[in-house]
Amino acid sequence: MEDRWTRLRQRMKKEGLDGCIISHPAAIRYFTGLSFSCGERMIVLLVRQKGQPVLFLNELFPLTPRPDFQLVRFNDTEDGVAVLDPFLSGTVAVDPLWPAGFVLRLMKRRPDLTLSEENPVDKIRAIKDEQEQQKMRQASLNNDAVMARVRQLIQIGKTEKQLEQEIRQAFQQIAHSEPSFETIVAFAENGADPHATPSDKVLKEGMSVIIDMGCRFEDYCSDMTRTFFVGHMSMPQVYQTVLRANLAGIAAVRPGVRFCDIDRACRQVIEEAGYGPYFTHRTGHGIGLNVHEPFDVSAVNETQVEAGMCFSIEPGIYLPAVGGVRIEDLVLVTEQGCEVLNHDPKDQPVL
Amino acid sequence: MEDRWTRLRQRMKKEGLDGCIISHPAAIRYFTGLSFSCGERMIVLLVRQKGQPVLFLNELFPLTPRPDFQLVRFNDTEDGVAVLDPFLSGTVAVDPLWPAGFVLRLMKRRPDLTLSEENPVDKIRAIKDEQEQQKMRQASLNNDAVMARVRQLIQIGKTEKQLEQEIRQAFQQIAHSEPSFETIVAFAENGADPHATPSDKVLKEGMSVIIDMGCRFEDYCSDMTRTFFVGHMSMPQVYQTVLRANLAGIAAVRPGVRFCDIDRACRQVIEEAGYGPYFTHRTGHGIGLNVHEPFDVSAVNETQVEAGMCFSIEPGIYLPAVGGVRIEDLVLVTEQGCEVLNHDPKDQPVL
Repeated sequence: MEDRWTRLRQRMKKEGLDGCIISHPAAIRYFTGLSFSCGERMIVLLVRQKGQPVLFLNELFPLTPRPDFQLVRFNDTEDGVAVLDPFLSGTVAVDPLWPAGFVLRLMKRRPDLTLSEENPVDKIRAIKDEQEQQKMRQASLNNDAVMARVRQLIQIGKTEKQLEQEIRQAFQQIAHSEPSFETIVAFAENGADPHATPSDKVLKEGMSVIIDMGCRFEDYCSDMTRTFFVGHMSMPQVYQTVLRANLAGIAAVRPGVRFCDIDRACRQVIEEAGYGPYFTHRTGHGIGLNVHEPFDVSAVNETQVEAGMCFSIEPGIYLPAVGGVRIEDLVLVTEQGCEVLNHDPKDQPVL
Repeated sequence: MEDRWTRLRQRMKKEGLDGCIISHPAAIRYFTGLSFSCGERMIVLLVRQKGQPVLFLNELFPLTPRPDFQLVRFNDTEDGVAVLDPFLSGTVAVDPLWPAGFVLRLMKRRPDLTLSEENPVDKIRAIKDEQEQQKMRQASLNNDAVMARVRQLIQIGKTEKQLEQEIRQAFQQIAHSEPSFETIVAFAENGADPHATPSDKVLKEGMSVIIDMGCRFEDYCSDMTRTFFVGHMSMPQVYQTVLRANLAGIAAVRPGVRFCDIDRACRQVIEEAGYGPYFTHRTGHGIGLNVHEPFDVSAVNETQVEAGMCFSIEPGIYLPAVGGVRIEDLVLVTEQGCEVLNHDPKDQPVL
């Protein structure tokens, strides 16, 4: 973890930051290995150019002091922001997920501070180190194993909700994990909503089935989508288009390209097939300790891809009242191109 | 719901607010009845002194337009803050839970705005209307029914994790609900941590058992804690002290008293019994659509209690390496005093 602090301090120096407020539980875990769930109570890990990092933690949450950071305690009768205040000076980057209530109170107390929404932590976390890469690989291997089981579980007569519960059990049994996000199970026209919630709809012959699911391995997330068809393929052209888009996106990944270039590669295939207006979302998102992390694979993100980054490629076509197809894989950027972390086949969608 | 908009506008007028940014999913649900889960994507319900409320929603999330608010759409290639910008002027209250990234970007674009962290929405939501009161009652009745079952489930030889899973099933079967928060099951010395996570610790004769649990009824939360003893009471003096503190807290609740007065009434009992340093947290928290809502029942909250408010009274004593006792009920403030929403007995802790 020492290396992570060092990388952060180097970037802070480069960006002229005196301090960096880290508040998101996953980011705190990234730097300390510790997990906290403080709810509405303030928790801040402050990293400064000089001196030790400082963890501000309500005394309700037990923690044995550690040599790698200073621990500052406060209780329910104290304002955490007031406790944090004297440790800050100059230009301070703020965790973009820190609740506004804290930020505004801090600004009121300290109009002299320059608060920046440019957050170096996201840039550090986006590049996975060796240890993280191994965990990402394993999380996706486990997801593959569960998807193989899902192919068997998809049976005529089951409801979306029922299948979702069975997938939850399969994650527990096979991957020893809870889902890393709410599993999407969408039959036929329900698949036209990219974020469909499982319903009581019953699976019938000929329907399409979108399964978007993931699990965790040592806190790192997997995320994969497959679209199946029961008995026969009802939307062959749509399926082939999305598959070609998925492969074109993956083929475009290498260090130096911009995220918007990958989005373009994907979107181009779908536009040329005439389905452009039905690909309604970004192509993908970063992933790691959180299932959604910076950076977006989107038309407006000009950030350059670097080796070690990990993100999803998930084009989709959504036809209102008809159905949808989405095919999603995770990629890990290598020196030459990328490694696809999912191995579940994409050329056998008919069950 | 019309009445809720009206109450908000009245309070905004009183506080000199031109606009109010609402972003928390529960707050948006409170005003519109609609549930959204947009993750990192921006969602804002803007209420202004003049004109219709406006909902800013990424086009990924399906919604049929409604007559009671204007719907403004944007997509993954647009910055939601830039879309929101032209609708704002003057003094704008910001949802204290809006992520800092949005707030700081908005301030950069619009240095002319005065952003306030004083949020009138919390004050509106704290006072439950008739319909909400009924749902809060039912949620706690359901929690009572499950707690009756929990008394039977607590058996020597089970682990904390096992019991937690069985409680989850009981919530599904009896209350048709998932837990409203992660159930706390803590045996013996594990109960010394107020936020203990269920472990593989096995229940034995003589141990104490803290169960802190809740469910939902039509989105409204219940929350109750009971402490049991297996076979015989290992900490009779601690239990009786916490019970007296719980009853003293409840007896102090009526319109006009301050939250700090209720905290004092509770804390006094524990201090006088010599356990003051071991009651390490606030006395309680508001509850409704969220399991934790403003306002805190704490030593520093001088807000006056009003009829219709609903919050927890949950004193505890935590003896490191020994164990803990916490007894929690929800109260609903009435014109004369309060109604206790839980009915599970507190005088039969020995199982």
